[in-house]
Amino acid sequence: MKALRSKEGVFSVENVSLPERADEALVRVLASGICNTDLEIVRGYAGFSGTIGHEFVGVVERADDEPELVGKRVVGEINAGCGRCGLCRRGDPRHCPERTVLGIVGRDGCHAEFLTLPVRNLIEVPSTITDNEAVFAEPLAAAFGITEQVEIAPETRVAVIGDGKLGLLCAMALAEKTRDICVIGRHRNKLSIAEDVGIECVTADRAASLGRVFDVVVEASGSESGFASAVDLVKPRGKIVLKSTFHGTPTWPASRIVVDEITIVGSRCGRFGPALDLLAAKNIPVQRLISDEFSLADGLAAMNRAGEKGVLKVLLRMT
Amino acid sequence: MKALRSKEGVFSVENVSLPERADEALVRVLASGICNTDLEIVRGYAGFSGTIGHEFVGVVERADDEPELVGKRVVGEINAGCGRCGLCRRGDPRHCPERTVLGIVGRDGCHAEFLTLPVRNLIEVPSTITDNEAVFAEPLAAAFGITEQVEIAPETRVAVIGDGKLGLLCAMALAEKTRDICVIGRHRNKLSIAEDVGIECVTADRAASLGRVFDVVVEASGSESGFASAVDLVKPRGKIVLKSTFHGTPTWPASRIVVDEITIVGSRCGRFGPALDLLAAKNIPVQRLISDEFSLADGLAAMNRAGEKGVLKVLLRMT
Repeated sequence: MKALRSKEGVFSVENVSLPERADEALVRVLASGICNTDLEIVRGYAGFSGTIGHEFVGVVERADDEPELVGKRVVGEINAGCGRCGLCRRGDPRHCPERTVLGIVGRDGCHAEFLTLPVRNLIEVPSTITDNEAVFAEPLAAAFGITEQVEIAPETRVAVIGDGKLGLLCAMALAEKTRDICVIGRHRNKLSIAEDVGIECVTADRAASLGRVFDVVVEASGSESGFASAVDLVKPRGKIVLKSTFHGTPTWPASRIVVDEITIVGSRCGRFGPALDLLAAKNIPVQRLISDEFSLADGLAAMNRAGEKGVLKVLLRMT
Repeated sequence: MKALRSKEGVFSVENVSLPERADEALVRVLASGICNTDLEIVRGYAGFSGTIGHEFVGVVERADDEPELVGKRVVGEINAGCGRCGLCRRGDPRHCPERTVLGIVGRDGCHAEFLTLPVRNLIEVPSTITDNEAVFAEPLAAAFGITEQVEIAPETRVAVIGDGKLGLLCAMALAEKTRDICVIGRHRNKLSIAEDVGIECVTADRAASLGRVFDVVVEASGSESGFASAVDLVKPRGKIVLKSTFHGTPTWPASRIVVDEITIVGSRCGRFGPALDLLAAKNIPVQRLISDEFSLADGLAAMNRAGEKGVLKVLLRMT
């Protein structure tokens, strides 16, 4: 089968044998989405070699442990835990120290014709959700996962820093919980996507004038300056949600965090169930976030396109 | 009156006139405690000029708004809010943007024969608490304030990094909530104070071997390496309480915070009522934390002593 692979910082589309893991389901991938993490892997993030990609929708081809899954259209939770440790036994393999992560840690990913995952990681996709929408289940779960960690009530005042696909998804997901939300970004064309669904947008140069008024600020730019803005916008005793991984070792105003008693919440994954519910409700126009689609054979062109300035989600179609 | 003052990075004991502020109580100081913040003010922290000091016990000499306070022995909440903003009206002047802070921001402090504070800041000290114990009300409130921000249950596993007076106070205060607590430090003599009250102690060189097992790690060393240790000791999805202000602009592993979904809680002040209750209960041997006492006239010697390696709390006696 074809697979888009990373090895020592170089991407290539290769012909490889079908993946096989004992006790796991085989999934034929229909479509996958390119995430910034995929781009960062080529820069050395997580030191990963293998097939990249972790956002997908596919059809189960084989599932010995749960044959009724065969033929079902599914998305998949990307963390596969050991199944034995305390975290896994409590139903949260996302932090299992032995976990593998689809296309990121110790496990081939989804930019390929086939992948394997444990059957417990697979979630059936309702028929009302299109393939392209379903690819957003993983990033939307990550965005909506904020609400598992931080209370967002109707009167909670929220700012999202960053108008990339993650920032826009966070804003659109959190707008389900509060209408007092604004996105801060540098790109009028991207901000207009949020504006079209009634979310207030502020260009970065005007952000400072907003003042320290937000209960929750979501940092989704992954930049040191984005974090600095978050500190300038959050209320004393407010919360900053760190949603993006950062390159290298940034600096931070630790004393401000203490004096203003700010809480910083690292946030990575979320649950797929609520994300599928949001997609089924069609309130979140994820299709507006798709900039381009490529065939898997054109995977290198797709990666280049995804890395261009101003581009949001790039999809790969496997067939 | 005599006062220990800071001006452009130089300390001196000076004769100044009695402090006076409209609508505030006049307090005759009995004893005060030197905090690391006092030492940092000489290095430029908060850009403060004036009488330093914010830990004290004293006797009310004049209180026009509440004459029944006169003659009472009191400690004092150090933040004085504007009284008008939303935070003040909700009873929390600690984050009022217009606040003054005793001996730190815009208000002369307590290393002096007299000070003024609004009557609402003053809390009467029960007679069973000695003057020397009462001086610890402020730092103990700050230590116990952690429990206002982070749930510490009997089974919560806690580590405190730093065996200075703040670290030891945090450990002793949190030991009221959980017995699963250890202090990590570099000084056997300081650690022995915690050990004597049944708290497990670990020297810093052995800390790494503890593993990522703590639900809550309190960073009370104020050093970048202390924060790095905290990240190495906290469980995924655990909490790091930042209790010390840091000098300058440290670096931090922001990506680890995201991937492990760690929460960082900035923590500064606490309420005095619970701290006085703890002091009255005599469970916390704060007197073990006193390294030395000086008269106010010897304030410079006291500051020098407080800055020596291995020294814990240094007190000033006003009479």
